[in-house]
Amino acid sequence: MSQFASIGLITKPDASQVIDTLRTVHQHLLEQGIQVYLEERNAELVKNAQSLSREQMGQRCDLAIVIGGDGTLLGAARSLAEYDIPIVGINLGNLGFLVDVPASDHLSHLDQILAGAYIEESRFLLQACVKRSEETFCQGLAMNDVVVHIKNVVRMVEFETYINGQFVNRQRADGLIVSTPSGSTAYALSGGGPILHPSLECITLLPICPHTLSSRPIVVAADSLVEICISEMRFESTHVVYDGQEGCDLQPDDRIVIQKSPYPVRLLHPKDYDYYHILREKLNWG
Amino acid sequence: MSQFASIGLITKPDASQVIDTLRTVHQHLLEQGIQVYLEERNAELVKNAQSLSREQMGQRCDLAIVIGGDGTLLGAARSLAEYDIPIVGINLGNLGFLVDVPASDHLSHLDQILAGAYIEESRFLLQACVKRSEETFCQGLAMNDVVVHIKNVVRMVEFETYINGQFVNRQRADGLIVSTPSGSTAYALSGGGPILHPSLECITLLPICPHTLSSRPIVVAADSLVEICISEMRFESTHVVYDGQEGCDLQPDDRIVIQKSPYPVRLLHPKDYDYYHILREKLNWG
Amino acid sequence: MSQFASIGLITKPDASQVIDTLRTVHQHLLEQGIQVYLEERNAELVKNAQSLSREQMGQRCDLAIVIGGDGTLLGAARSLAEYDIPIVGINLGNLGFLVDVPASDHLSHLDQILAGAYIEESRFLLQACVKRSEETFCQGLAMNDVVVHIKNVVRMVEFETYINGQFVNRQRADGLIVSTPSGSTAYALSGGGPILHPSLECITLLPICPHTLSSRPIVVAADSLVEICISEMRFESTHVVYDGQEGCDLQPDDRIVIQKSPYPVRLLHPKDYDYYHILREKLNWG
Amino acid sequence: MSQFASIGLITKPDASQVIDTLRTVHQHLLEQGIQVYLEERNAELVKNAQSLSREQMGQRCDLAIVIGGDGTLLGAARSLAEYDIPIVGINLGNLGFLVDVPASDHLSHLDQILAGAYIEESRFLLQACVKRSEETFCQGLAMNDVVVHIKNVVRMVEFETYINGQFVNRQRADGLIVSTPSGSTAYALSGGGPILHPSLECITLLPICPHTLSSRPIVVAADSLVEICISEMRFESTHVVYDGQEGCDLQPDDRIVIQKSPYPVRLLHPKDYDYYHILREKLNWG
Repeated sequence: MSQFASIGLITKPDASQVIDTLRTVHQHLLEQGIQVYLEERNAELVKNAQSLSREQMGQRCDLAIVIGGDGTLLGAARSLAEYDIPIVGINLGNLGFLVDVPASDHLSHLDQILAGAYIEESRFLLQACVKRSEETFCQGLAMNDVVVHIKNVVRMVEFETYINGQFVNRQRADGLIVSTPSGSTAYALSGGGPILHPSLECITLLPICPHTLSSRPIVVAADSLVEICISEMRFESTHVVYDGQEGCDLQPDDRIVIQKSPYPVRLLHPKDYDYYHILREKLNWG
Repeated sequence: MSQFASIGLITKPDASQVIDTLRTVHQHLLEQGIQVYLEERNAELVKNAQSLSREQMGQRCDLAIVIGGDGTLLGAARSLAEYDIPIVGINLGNLGFLVDVPASDHLSHLDQILAGAYIEESRFLLQACVKRSEETFCQGLAMNDVVVHIKNVVRMVEFETYINGQFVNRQRADGLIVSTPSGSTAYALSGGGPILHPSLECITLLPICPHTLSSRPIVVAADSLVEICISEMRFESTHVVYDGQEGCDLQPDDRIVIQKSPYPVRLLHPKDYDYYHILREKLNWG
Repeated sequence: MSQFASIGLITKPDASQVIDTLRTVHQHLLEQGIQVYLEERNAELVKNAQSLSREQMGQRCDLAIVIGGDGTLLGAARSLAEYDIPIVGINLGNLGFLVDVPASDHLSHLDQILAGAYIEESRFLLQACVKRSEETFCQGLAMNDVVVHIKNVVRMVEFETYINGQFVNRQRADGLIVSTPSGSTAYALSGGGPILHPSLECITLLPICPHTLSSRPIVVAADSLVEICISEMRFESTHVVYDGQEGCDLQPDDRIVIQKSPYPVRLLHPKDYDYYHILREKLNWG
Repeated sequence: MSQFASIGLITKPDASQVIDTLRTVHQHLLEQGIQVYLEERNAELVKNAQSLSREQMGQRCDLAIVIGGDGTLLGAARSLAEYDIPIVGINLGNLGFLVDVPASDHLSHLDQILAGAYIEESRFLLQACVKRSEETFCQGLAMNDVVVHIKNVVRMVEFETYINGQFVNRQRADGLIVSTPSGSTAYALSGGGPILHPSLECITLLPICPHTLSSRPIVVAADSLVEICISEMRFESTHVVYDGQEGCDLQPDDRIVIQKSPYPVRLLHPKDYDYYHILREKLNWG
């Protein structure tokens, strides 16, 4: 008997690779008397399927099942964040840090989760916005990272960082990654950042290719107010990006303000979830 | 009027460089009607001074003033940890991360602190011990780090790490640094670790010269139980060291068990304490 | 008596900061009976000055004196490369790796160099071009580095590297720096590359933020044929840039072909030139 | 018909794992009319085998075949260096950077090499010695690296480095690795050094856990005279080690002098030798 009466199914934008899994899961849930909804853009993929917008899912469903990669789950988490709905991710053959229900045998894993046999984990998001003169704009959420980055290798950006109003430093670099623990195994890891256990209430600030050779990643409390002030750049060649997806171009004197979102993500994992096992697999620590 | 009726003065082992400062501070405190104690080993240095053992200081004094470098304060913190006595550090010209009352003008800084104008900060310690067969031995405290390290470059040590009983990985390396946020700007920084803000309840695990190139520092919650199991090494060439001071040699199958000490260190800073300023100074971020 | 009968003076594009130095040097050389030429764009800055194009300088002058920063000298070196003309650089107060005649006291340093008291050093350049289908285009020279880089943090580029026709690896990264020894203390140093002594006939290949954590910089012989084949990228978001100045956008299946230029740069240094001294100064190894 | 009339067989010290391969190779060579010699310590392992000392092998044999790992070949290379004898390595199942004839199918690979179908490669060695007061002692050869290293994590060593008599820097660190290109994929790689193509005439100087955060590996010409002067250390806690094998303890004011050995090693590889393939395999670049 499912703990979840109403479930939304979310897939990656290009749903062609996931149609089979989507149909199987959809049919499997229906057979258990669960109300199942697809996203509107996928409504055509499954006969007689009911569909909802992402926001309606957040309001009406008890669970969201993501079928795809970590990127798809990141998107779902951002859009559902304020609805307090748990999310579980089914991967398509490549184990993810977030989508950890294995493609093989996903129905039996799902059944256990529906029956209440799961591990629930809370992950925080970052909310960011850009302040220009008096205006606030370009707001966004990030589960992994907020990244300030040059758009052109020719130009370096110079910026000052403040934590809770305290001046940290002024740097010239290719950019700065502000990462959650979830993001510590994503882009920040490629940039030389440490791995932060997902349970930590911490944020990493990591300069990319910093001009000052004694620069190091700094880890601060998740409830810190992080401000990045663009002091100098040429030709409006810098942008800010949330989870590698959306963002906007920056101008000198822009201030990017980043803090923990009040809405955490509720991730459900299979009972045998083992974070360090995933680390070993993904990082080739065999 | 001093908030502290009774104060212990602690210096570095080789007190010859600090005699002048020691005498000045001693005299200055006496003049304010404070009871002042030197360590027994320093009793001779100041005429008619009263002296106590480190432990007696912990029991009887309201404040410990350390005159020296960060290493001297680390030692004081370990030995006074269980007595809940606040500590303030006067440096001898070189700004330290911990001894931050400047050599120049230390008396006026001290007066402010004695008058209650200070910032109090709590730093946690690690307690570690080695388990061999059924026995526990080689216990110790560390404010900065517990380091497992080869004693001879010819030999690599192979060990397994467990967090809260969960297997993390098996590594061949020159060693492993288990560091507090205080230690993140000490040895761990030379080894490539991130800077952790001192307020964080986190521990960094940092392999030294790891054989597996995808190894990265891992940051976990400070209340984690960290276990390092020596799986293989040659010729008993590995040791464990606490704060770079004491420790013992290890044998294969030894298990080093590390957790947060229940006794935090209470550090007092001048009112204008600015952690990021110290970072910028010490790391040449000018 | 000057060894150089005819000298060209080259400044940074914004010559306003260098006018005084330019006039002083110009006058000083004239007084020694030397034929002195400014660049055409600077002809107005000095009364009755003779001017030449950069190319004419290469053909007619015996020496080029650069007044500015390392970037200005890089540009001069590229444009004069094929003319076998020695170059000396006067900095404007900030010691450079290339412009090492100090601003203070530059006339007496110059006099020594004119009298033949100098150290001559040869630095090689890279020549690069992009091959698209059958066509070759976007050719360029680089004294420091040829950089393939994403233009947008959202996109990673995937590319294959070949050395002398041998497959090295396939990488996903933010980019790749192909650097000369001269460039090893420039952008490549920020990206984590090693310092290569300027005398070495070597090239460093350095991935930027590589997805594969065991990626490392690779140093190969300077006479290697380096090919970078863009295998995958989204939205034409990658470009190639020579010395951080010029370049072009790339497309999938583009092949960037890089090899040592046949025309070396002849750098003249004062007699007391000390490469390691410059390293210590610039990298804060005090 | 073998190009090599007389061949020496060299194994790892603990020959028990290689007996089968040793006997097979020995018999196979005898059958081709080749004179085959074992090392004296292995003479008992093969019936009626002829044996020679390592030095006699160098004098009398036309080829040395090493059966074991890279460490065994390093040892053979050092001891045979001055005899100008080519070396080929058969691994025992784990591909090595140096022992690259695969365990499986080694006889057919050997036959091709004996018939002249091989790639010959020259690798240089380092020769090092310690100068104390007027005396020279503790001389040694290294194919991979000369390492100065603390023997106790408690102590850091402080040393000055000179290249061709020029002062490079003064560092506090856990040690310094002076590595050949061969060694660049060994200990130096774990320490954060670049990969140097084996054909390069270069040496890497790599500090281990340096106190100065802007320290970087430096690559210099192989014909440089490298001197490391121990300026300060406590309790004679530092040693120098050649290829991780032999060496000696150091004292303050000791000077370690390192330069390229006049005797290169001649390595033979199978015709399909592909350095980058080995890199990809060993570093998990799949």
